Formats: sequence, structure tokens, C-alpha cells
Amino acid sequence: MTNAKKIVVIGAGVAGLTSALQLSKKGYDVTIVAKFVPGDYDIEYTSPWAGANWMSFVKDNQRLANYDRITYGVFQRLVKECPDAGIWPQRCITYVRPEDLDKQSDLLGGLLDARPWFADLVGNFTMLDPSTLPKGYCQGIAYDSVCMNVQVYLPWLQSQCFANGVKLKVITLKHIKEAVNLHASGCKADLIVNCTGLLASKLGGVMDSKIYPGRGQTVLVRNHAPAMYNVSGTTDGEDELTYIMSRPGGGTILGGCYQKGNWNGAVDPNLAERIIRRSLELCPELENDFPLDIVRHNVGLRPSREGGPRVELEDLDGVGKVVHNYGAGGAGYQSSYGMADHVVELAELAFKE
Amino acid sequence: MTNAKKIVVIGAGVAGLTSALQLSKKGYDVTIVAKFVPGDYDIEYTSPWAGANWMSFVKDNQRLANYDRITYGVFQRLVKECPDAGIWPQRCITYVRPEDLDKQSDLLGGLLDARPWFADLVGNFTMLDPSTLPKGYCQGIAYDSVCMNVQVYLPWLQSQCFANGVKLKVITLKHIKEAVNLHASGCKADLIVNCTGLLASKLGGVMDSKIYPGRGQTVLVRNHAPAMYNVSGTTDGEDELTYIMSRPGGGTILGGCYQKGNWNGAVDPNLAERIIRRSLELCPELENDFPLDIVRHNVGLRPSREGGPRVELEDLDGVGKVVHNYGAGGAGYQSSYGMADHVVELAELAFKE
Amino acid sequence: MTNAKKIVVIGAGVAGLTSALQLSKKGYDVTIVAKFVPGDYDIEYTSPWAGANWMSFVKDNQRLANYDRITYGVFQRLVKECPDAGIWPQRCITYVRPEDLDKQSDLLGGLLDARPWFADLVGNFTMLDPSTLPKGYCQGIAYDSVCMNVQVYLPWLQSQCFANGVKLKVITLKHIKEAVNLHASGCKADLIVNCTGLLASKLGGVMDSKIYPGRGQTVLVRNHAPAMYNVSGTTDGEDELTYIMSRPGGGTILGGCYQKGNWNGAVDPNLAERIIRRSLELCPELENDFPLDIVRHNVGLRPSREGGPRVELEDLDGVGKVVHNYGAGGAGYQSSYGMADHVVELAELAFKE
Amino acid sequence: MTNAKKIVVIGAGVAGLTSALQLSKKGYDVTIVAKFVPGDYDIEYTSPWAGANWMSFVKDNQRLANYDRITYGVFQRLVKECPDAGIWPQRCITYVRPEDLDKQSDLLGGLLDARPWFADLVGNFTMLDPSTLPKGYCQGIAYDSVCMNVQVYLPWLQSQCFANGVKLKVITLKHIKEAVNLHASGCKADLIVNCTGLLASKLGGVMDSKIYPGRGQTVLVRNHAPAMYNVSGTTDGEDELTYIMSRPGGGTILGGCYQKGNWNGAVDPNLAERIIRRSLELCPELENDFPLDIVRHNVGLRPSREGGPRVELEDLDGVGKVVHNYGAGGAGYQSSYGMADHVVELAELAFKE
Repeated sequence: MTNAKKIVVIGAGVAGLTSALQLSKKGYDVTIVAKFVPGDYDIEYTSPWAGANWMSFVKDNQRLANYDRITYGVFQRLVKECPDAGIWPQRCITYVRPEDLDKQSDLLGGLLDARPWFADLVGNFTMLDPSTLPKGYCQGIAYDSVCMNVQVYLPWLQSQCFANGVKLKVITLKHIKEAVNLHASGCKADLIVNCTGLLASKLGGVMDSKIYPGRGQTVLVRNHAPAMYNVSGTTDGEDELTYIMSRPGGGTILGGCYQKGNWNGAVDPNLAERIIRRSLELCPELENDFPLDIVRHNVGLRPSREGGPRVELEDLDGVGKVVHNYGAGGAGYQSSYGMADHVVELAELAFKE
Repeated sequence: MTNAKKIVVIGAGVAGLTSALQLSKKGYDVTIVAKFVPGDYDIEYTSPWAGANWMSFVKDNQRLANYDRITYGVFQRLVKECPDAGIWPQRCITYVRPEDLDKQSDLLGGLLDARPWFADLVGNFTMLDPSTLPKGYCQGIAYDSVCMNVQVYLPWLQSQCFANGVKLKVITLKHIKEAVNLHASGCKADLIVNCTGLLASKLGGVMDSKIYPGRGQTVLVRNHAPAMYNVSGTTDGEDELTYIMSRPGGGTILGGCYQKGNWNGAVDPNLAERIIRRSLELCPELENDFPLDIVRHNVGLRPSREGGPRVELEDLDGVGKVVHNYGAGGAGYQSSYGMADHVVELAELAFKE
Repeated sequence: MTNAKKIVVIGAGVAGLTSALQLSKKGYDVTIVAKFVPGDYDIEYTSPWAGANWMSFVKDNQRLANYDRITYGVFQRLVKECPDAGIWPQRCITYVRPEDLDKQSDLLGGLLDARPWFADLVGNFTMLDPSTLPKGYCQGIAYDSVCMNVQVYLPWLQSQCFANGVKLKVITLKHIKEAVNLHASGCKADLIVNCTGLLASKLGGVMDSKIYPGRGQTVLVRNHAPAMYNVSGTTDGEDELTYIMSRPGGGTILGGCYQKGNWNGAVDPNLAERIIRRSLELCPELENDFPLDIVRHNVGLRPSREGGPRVELEDLDGVGKVVHNYGAGGAGYQSSYGMADHVVELAELAFKE
Repeated sequence: MTNAKKIVVIGAGVAGLTSALQLSKKGYDVTIVAKFVPGDYDIEYTSPWAGANWMSFVKDNQRLANYDRITYGVFQRLVKECPDAGIWPQRCITYVRPEDLDKQSDLLGGLLDARPWFADLVGNFTMLDPSTLPKGYCQGIAYDSVCMNVQVYLPWLQSQCFANGVKLKVITLKHIKEAVNLHASGCKADLIVNCTGLLASKLGGVMDSKIYPGRGQTVLVRNHAPAMYNVSGTTDGEDELTYIMSRPGGGTILGGCYQKGNWNGAVDPNLAERIIRRSLELCPELENDFPLDIVRHNVGLRPSREGGPRVELEDLDGVGKVVHNYGAGGAGYQSSYGMADHVVELAELAFKE
């Protein structure tokens, strides 16, 4: 591998790990440098707090739809071929309330569409008969998707990187330029890939002021739900959500909220109660086997960005070529392979230049 | 696999996962039921808080030495064959203070031996020249061993189980008899394997009063140490230890203490300072690349047991055949494969009976 | 005050502060030495986690009944004379389930009595007409009592000490003998008063093995209840309780549990849900003004003791005269003045000898 | 008090409690409504995390100097007359580094002045002889000031309010207009006093976008320092500070930092180490009696505001007359009585109109 181009990926969230993995598959010599790694729980590190699943909420945006489309394909393959990856098939069901139907909401995006962009992509897409919907809803869809257990998937992704020769250094960076000298080979990096998520707003040389947190809070329970559920709104305020997803080998995530600009990493005990109440209303089957059994309450900050995720090549003074890959907000997992493939393209472009 | 014997393993710590993995390799149909799983951090769940490495402190106990011997062999193989497992080779160095030489301590065990039982097992065993030891020490040994990053290894072990067909259910048990009906096949379990660690003292039907916590506290830092270090004692009290180990891809663990009978799950901020001070005294090289950079402070309760670990077959009224595998104290990782092999033997014995 | 006897009180929980206050009123020169003081929250420091109120559960024990009787009188005076003390009058209501009527329980004690020892002490004692009780209960009493806001009362007690000339030193002791040299005057203490609660089991020279924790968990909410409620049992297990008390100027405490021997300082999220559910069932009026609004979840360890609280004079080798005052379990506040008066008596006895 | 004007004060931090106390002294009928009260620790509630002392850093601002001047006078009186208030006299010493001398820093303000505005106000003001300064400093002043233990003072302030007839309701407000109907009398409030600190940026009807957090982190230790120390800068970055203050009856605060715009409520473990190191360098006397003994690590968010604190009368649509009193940043305690007196003036003005 001595002649391979040397790449330093900054960040070991889902974006950084997936980028590193895909780059390593192309034969590049990749070192990840990261402040936090799988197994760490910190409010600055979003990936371990995620649900996560594939439930695209893209609307009228081909670039983003393409990221999700690519990722859907990979996830389907993982389900079949990699029982060790912590991802399994689940039916995904979305209900819409009449009062939300005409909303124009960035947050909801395509969730309100009776026939979203991915209707032909996913398996067994169905528009639900309104007469069969739970009370209070007027529209619904269902389709075959996946749910992953991020506490399995994220370390698995990291292990895949290791198996592929990727090196990992745990280190705190103040400025992106430091990364240039951190390649495990001891040589200067030929390219930096910046997957710093929320910290892109604080990293010297990047300091992206368009980044903002979309605070999420969830409850992880030991119970099981028969499908993944999502609804268009709640009666508890504009920034609260209800979603449910059962993870392979690890309980069920009950969500949630999207609180724009809120950096508070502490659990809101009242929001926790509202999430529990709404989840049991939406899916009483949760208690089929035993009463609700809470593992813990989670708070994570989605790395959102005005104008959408930034995946682009930049030539940074004093640093050199940088491929940015951050700002996916709540779509970090479901767009991960699409964005990583874009990173690979940009890396190839950078090396051609 | 329909004709395979059905086994339910209780617990998803290193004991439960390794037992499940080894049983699944024998063709048994294994379901793990666990209150906590890799990715969870709870004071009742010890494995994710561990260092961990291979540094046997067995003394005059063939059974325990055998557990560690078997495990050493497996770890050596993993280092070579499984870069994804989060385990790497490290030189292990132990220093002894003159004032500790004549101590008879269960805690220290074989650490004080100038030539411990494993001298011929490990690679490149060396008795250090006393004139080369740091000030304050009179005896020292060094040998080739391994360190694992439990935040990589524990999920990897779980993923190996998944790849081998093991099922996992997250559930809280009050009584061991509930496990009988929790096999993923829906059928009654033919055998229960009890790997509940500390919770063996609280689980109905087991309630082992010999179990007690050996509280440990560590500091995880991003810095790197050139080897694993361990000393025979400190000037900060009988229950304090100093040890250092650098993990593959994830910083260095600075320890520690062994506080018998202490259930306090909160970080002691003063002990943290003492650990930091002692670690930098013992290994100033930690700050070679950058000043000490703390990721977090950890507290875990080693599942110790009067009389040593319990690995035995029992016929429990109302439950049936149970193989117990718990109580390894601070040796959970380094004895894991030895104990799991013993579990396999006892399972085979149970099925023969 | 130069001729006054010099007393060092160890501990600044309700026992230590009340003892110090009452001793200072007798003209003694008192210094409190404490690891934790009002404003601290630590699992080793029980007082700030308490409810608290007066609701005696003494049964057939004159000594303990006397402690509670004396304290009831002082509390009544404080209600009238000290609006700054954070204590107010509340009606106290206890309901008994038929299935608990014949229980012999140390925990419940006099709670099951249709006419407890204090029927003639408290104001407006009433045996409730069974036909008026909520469903599921067969017996009930009501009487005039008080509730205090410990976040007001504990600092107030400390401020009263300061106003009375008591000095306070924050320091961690390993052995009770250290206290002898810690009097603020610089002189040796003439007497030690040991109010170390749970830590009496760990303090050198005391190490009382009869001490054990009675773990309690509560929910502090911003809502208001019209009275204090308590019931004889729940359907959620033998160690769970239901009680409700609204504090002057600071929300309502919802309890709870009494988990003998459990040292876990972390909040049990499922117990929290059960407490909330039971509290709303028992007192739906909590939500009269607004939906349940949680401030936080609390865990405290009542300093219980086999054989009951220890209030006695001891002549300790290498320390001198010690008056012990600890082990009140869940009665720390409601017995505080009675126990402190006993301390004063024993101090006077010690000085006479 | 039936004819007294009815005032609702929002917030029970030092601003709200002091305002309520001063208003109640004028005979107004005051109710405090607050989400958090003394005894609560929450990142949204700054007052309990403060040091606190009097060490004015005002420069060229008569309004602010006047707030501090008034407060200095009250604090001196409290020291003499109220031993229960948790405030005592301390010598205050400030050292300036040569490299900071010419800085124009809002944060440092008057700290760099060789002869600050308060030189004639405080007792025994001294410009220190440069030859006597510790190494690394070129200028220094010393003067008589005070330090308060906020865990004593804040509850004391609240108790003074209670003693003066002020009522307190614990409740979460979404909009300032809700306060109008929350007076304890049941009548509509004649005036609202808004002391919401950081939450002024989130309270409906206020939503002050000029508010931002000035994150502070401190270490509370049991040790004692002979004086209060403060320096003009550190070598650890522009946003780090070093200050030390010993509190009456409760250990010593070691600071700190001022991180503008940082909302992170979690303790930064590395900053904690830097604070400890710098504090011991500046004041080795801390360890005179015993090694550093940490109680806990604190994080609080100073309620800073572009343009300085807002103390003004507003007539708010749908709410009525409102006096605002928030945004004091790090000067909350030392300006508290000056600001509260201003509130009283504005209240009188409001009632005259």
C-alpha cells in the first residue's frame, strides 16, 4: 500500500467511518483522526445517539434523494449478507394528520407526500386505505425498509475499516491543518476529508456558521414494536415528533423531537414523559410482552446545516485539498453511503487535478 | 439447526458473549437474554468499563491459571487473524516495590512473583535488571501480551455471535426460571447458562451471597503509552492501584483501584486526580505527543466472588439444568475463553446426563 | 464564649445541624466538620434528598415515639414563628389496603394502626369513614401535620447555626479521632458528636456494621397536591411505596421506595414511571393547574440501622468522649429535635462525669 | 397588605430574589414565579453555580459602576450584621501580566487598571509593589472585599423574602403574559418584573436575541485560600481565567473560564485539570492543611448580553407594565442590590404613570 495516496479523515461518526471505509476499498491509505469514537457518548458526537433507520424525508432535491437512494441499496445488501452488521428489515409506516397535510415544513419534507420520491425504490410500497388508519390520521403509507442498531452498526463499521487497513488515532484537533501531519504513515496527507459534523462549526479553518444543532431526545426501551412508525405531528408542540423503531438485538427507540438551535445536552424529563405517552398511544403493542422497560433516555444533536449537507472539494490555504462531508442533519445514516460515494468521487477528482 | 439443543445464555458481558460464541460454534442453538448489551453503560454492567488486557494475577491455582492460559492462546490468534477485533500486541511490564515483596494479598496474587506461573507461556518473558528499574522499585518483569479496546472488542464479539446465528433479546429478568421460556425459537430451553456477573447476587433463583463488587475507577485519555505498565502498590492507600494500557484505536486507560464492597457508581474526583498524577509519574511518555487529554472518567464494579469464579453445572428446581459462569472479578477478559470452554464442557456433560 | 466547652459535631445533615444548633443554644462552643454541607448533592449525603415531613411510623417503641413527639412540637412552633424556615402545615392522610392490614412490617410500623400512638398528639386526628375512602383501601386516618422544603429548611438550619456562633469546616475525615483537633478555636475538642449517617459504616473508629442503606427514589414536580398522602402498599412490589407531599415554595415530592441494602445512586427510570403513575392515580388533583411538570428525579439512601438509631455516649480510645447520633433511617427530620435533645442530655452527662 | 400593589417577579436567581426582597421592603405584595429555585442545579439556572464575590470589572460605565457601588455597601453591612447570610470579608488581590496590560477586552474591563474606579470605595486599597509580585506579573492591586457562599446566601435571600411575606410558586412559563395571572392573591398582577437571566432569550414575549451564555467552569474544593486571587490571563487560551475564592463555611471555588456562546453544560475534564494546575501554581497555600480535596466540578452559563444588562421599564402588549432586570453576565451578585434598587425605582415610576 506504500504507493497509495494518503488520506486523513477527520471524525469517526457515521459519515467519517463510511467515508473511510469506501475510500479504503478504493485502495487509498486512510487514517481516521477523531475526538470521539464508537463507544463514546458525548453531546458533541451525534452518531451513537441516533435511531437509526432508512426513512427518507427528502422533497424536491435530487442530490439528497440520490444520497438516500444509494444508501438504500447498500442497506438492503447488508441485511442479506451481513448478519453481524446490526441491521434488519422492518416495515416502515407513516401516518399524516389532516392538520399537517398542507404544511410546508423543511423538517417534515417528503413525509407528507402521499407518494414520495422513493415509492418505486423501496419494496412493497403501499398507500394505506384511509379507513384503516388509526383515529386522527387521514393519510398513510407503508413500505419495506430497514432499521439498524447503531450500537452494533457503528462499531461494526469501524471494525470493517480496521479489517481494510484503516488506522485510527484518537486526538483533539483545534485546527483542520493539524490533520495534515497526523497520517499513520508519518507522511504528510495528500488529502483531508472533513467529517466533523456539529464540530464543523468550531474547528479552526472551517468554522462553518451554517451548522446548527437539531436537538433530538429519545427513550430506549427493551420492548419490541412490530414495525417502524412515524407520524406527521403531535399535539405537544411544533418541534415534537413521534417515531418508533425496533432495533436488531437491542430494544426499541421511541422519539422524539427536533429542536432547532437548542444545544442542551441534558435530558428533559417532561419531554421524556410525553414521548412515552405518545409512543404507547401510537403503538400499544409495545407492551404486548411486558410493561414498558426503559433502558435509558438519550439526547443527541443532529448536525443540521442551512442549505443542506456540504459535500464538496475545497483547496484550503495552508491545508491543501479538503473534501468536506458534513451537515446531514437527521439523515446521517440513511444518506451515508451516497455521501461517501460522493466523497470518493471528489477525492478522485482532487487527485486528478 | 432445528435439531440442535436450545440454550439460553443470560447476560451479554464478556462472559455471556464468549460463552454464547463458543457454544454456537459447537452447533448449539443459542439465544442470549440480557438486561444490558454492548453500547450500554450502567453500573450493573461491568464489561464496557474494563481496561482490558491479558495480565494474569493468578497464584497457586491451576484451575484459574488454565482459564488464563487458554485465553492467552486465543488472544494471540485474534491479534494475528482479526484486525477487526480491536486487540493488539503490547509489551506488559510489572514493577514491584520493596515494601510489597512479602505481602500475601489476594488482590496482588502472582503480581509479586519474580517468575510467575506464565513465564513459559508468554512471549519474551524477561526478569528486568533491578539496576534499570525506575526509582522506588526493586523487581520487575516484562513479557509479550495483548491489550484490547473493549469498545471495539465487545461489539465485535456480539457481531461474531450474530454471524454465527446467535439471537439476542434485551429483557430484564427477575428470576432465572423466566429464561427457560425466552429462547428465540419459541421452544423451551434445554439448558440455561448463567453469566450474570454482579447481578448473580440479585437474580431470583441464584442470589449468590458470595458475590461482591471490586470497585474500579479509571481515566480514559487520548494519549499513548509505549507499553502496558502495572505496579505492586502506591502510597495512596491499600486499595489503590496504578496501571496503564494503550488500546488499539482508542486511547489509553489509566487505573485505578480495587475497592472491595464499594457499590458507588459515581466518579470520585479526588481518586481521579491521584490516578492522573501516578500515571504521569510512572509513564511521562504519555505526554510525548500532546498534554494529557482526558476523554472521560469511568467507574466499574468488578464481579468478584469469595472462593473465586463459579463455573459449574447445577440442576435447579423449577428451572432445570444450569451452567453457571460468573464471578471472575478483574479477570473477566483474560479468562474469558478458558471459562467459556469450561462452559461448553459442562453443557456437553449436561446433555449427556 | 472562651470558657464554654468545645464540641466538634461531625456531619452537616439534619442530625448534625440540629444537634449543633441545640448544643449552641446551651452555650457550648460548637464547630461542625463535614464532608458535605447544604447545597451539596451526593449519594453519601442523605438529607438534601429527603421529602420531608412529619408522619411518624413508630410502633411500640417509646424512645422513638418520644423523639418524634418532641420534634412535632418544635415543628408546630416553627410553622407559626418562622416563615423563613420553609415549613408549613399540611393535612396528612394515610390509606391502608386490606391486604396489608395484618402485615408485621418494620418498614410500615405504625402506619397500619387505625389509631396510632400519636392520635392524641397531633391536631384534628380523624379515623376516616371507610365508605369515603378511594377504591382499594379499607382504613384511613387524617391529621394535622407539617411538610418542609428541605432545600429551604436545611440551609435555614445551617444559617441558624451561624447566627448562633457555630463554625463550619468542610473537610473529609478518615478517622473519628481527627475531629478532636479540628475545633475552630484551635483547641482540642472536649467532646465529639458523631452525626455521620450512612458514613458511620465507613468512618475509621466507628465502622458501624449495623448501618445499611434504605434506598429511596422520588420525583420532584412543580405541581401541587392538596394534602400529604401515604398508602400502606402498592401492587408494584414489596419495596415500593407511594407518598406525596407538597412543599412550601417548591413543588411536590412523589415517592417512592425503600430498597434495603441497595447502594445504587443512579435513577431507575422504570421506578420513576411507576411512581408517576401511582401518584397520579392516588392524587389526580396534582394536574389541576397544569400537566405534571417534573423538576428532577432523586435518589437518596436513608441511613438505616439494625436495632434502630444510635444515640449514646461512648468513651473511645484515643478519641475521648463521643456522643453518637445517627441511624434514623427515614425518620431523620421527624425525629431530629428529639434526637438532638438526647444529644444535649448526653453531652451534659459527659461533662459531668 | 390588601391595598399594596401586586407584583409578580419571574425568576428566583440572585436578580429575582434580590428584586423581590427590595420590592417587598417597600410594601409591595410580591409573588415570585420561577422554573428553578434555590437548591436546584440546572444549566438554565445560573445563580447556584456562581463563585461569588465582589470584584468589580466595570470600566468607563457609570451605570454599571453605580450598581456595583450600591451592592458593595449592602454586602459590607451584611458581613457585619448577618452572620447567617453566608458572606464574609476577604482580601481581594488582582495580578496583571505584562502581555495583558495593553489589551482592550470587554471581559477584563477594569481588571487591568492600576487604579480602578472603586479605589476610593473599597477598604484599604493598595497598589502592590511590583517587586513583591509573583513571577510573571507586573502590576497588582489589593483591597478589602467580600466573598459569599451562594449555597448559603441564595437560600438565605429566599428565606428573607419569605420572612417579608413574599410568596413563591414553582412553575414553567412559556410566555411572559402567563405571569399576569399567577399572583398568589389570585388577583391580576399590577406589574411584572422579568428576572429570567439566560431564559430571557427563550421566554415568549421577550425572546431577547442579545442574550448569550458566557460559559464558566469551576472546581469546588474543601481547601482554604488566605485571600481571593484573580489574574489578567493565562497561557491556556484567551477564554480561560484563573480565580480563587474561599467561601464562608464551604470550601473554595477555583475558576475558570469565560467561553462566549458555548451552551455545553457538561464538565470539560481537561479544563478541570488546567484550572487545578493553575490554581495550585497561583496559591500553593491551598494545600497547607491537606492535599487538594475536590467536592465537585461545576458548569454555569453567565447570562451575558450585548450592550450590557437590561434594566428598564416596558409596556408590553397583552401583558402590561414590565420591569426587566437581566443580563448581568458575571456580575450578577456584585451588582444585585444596585440593579434591584433600579427595579424599585422603575416600579415606582410605573405606578405613578
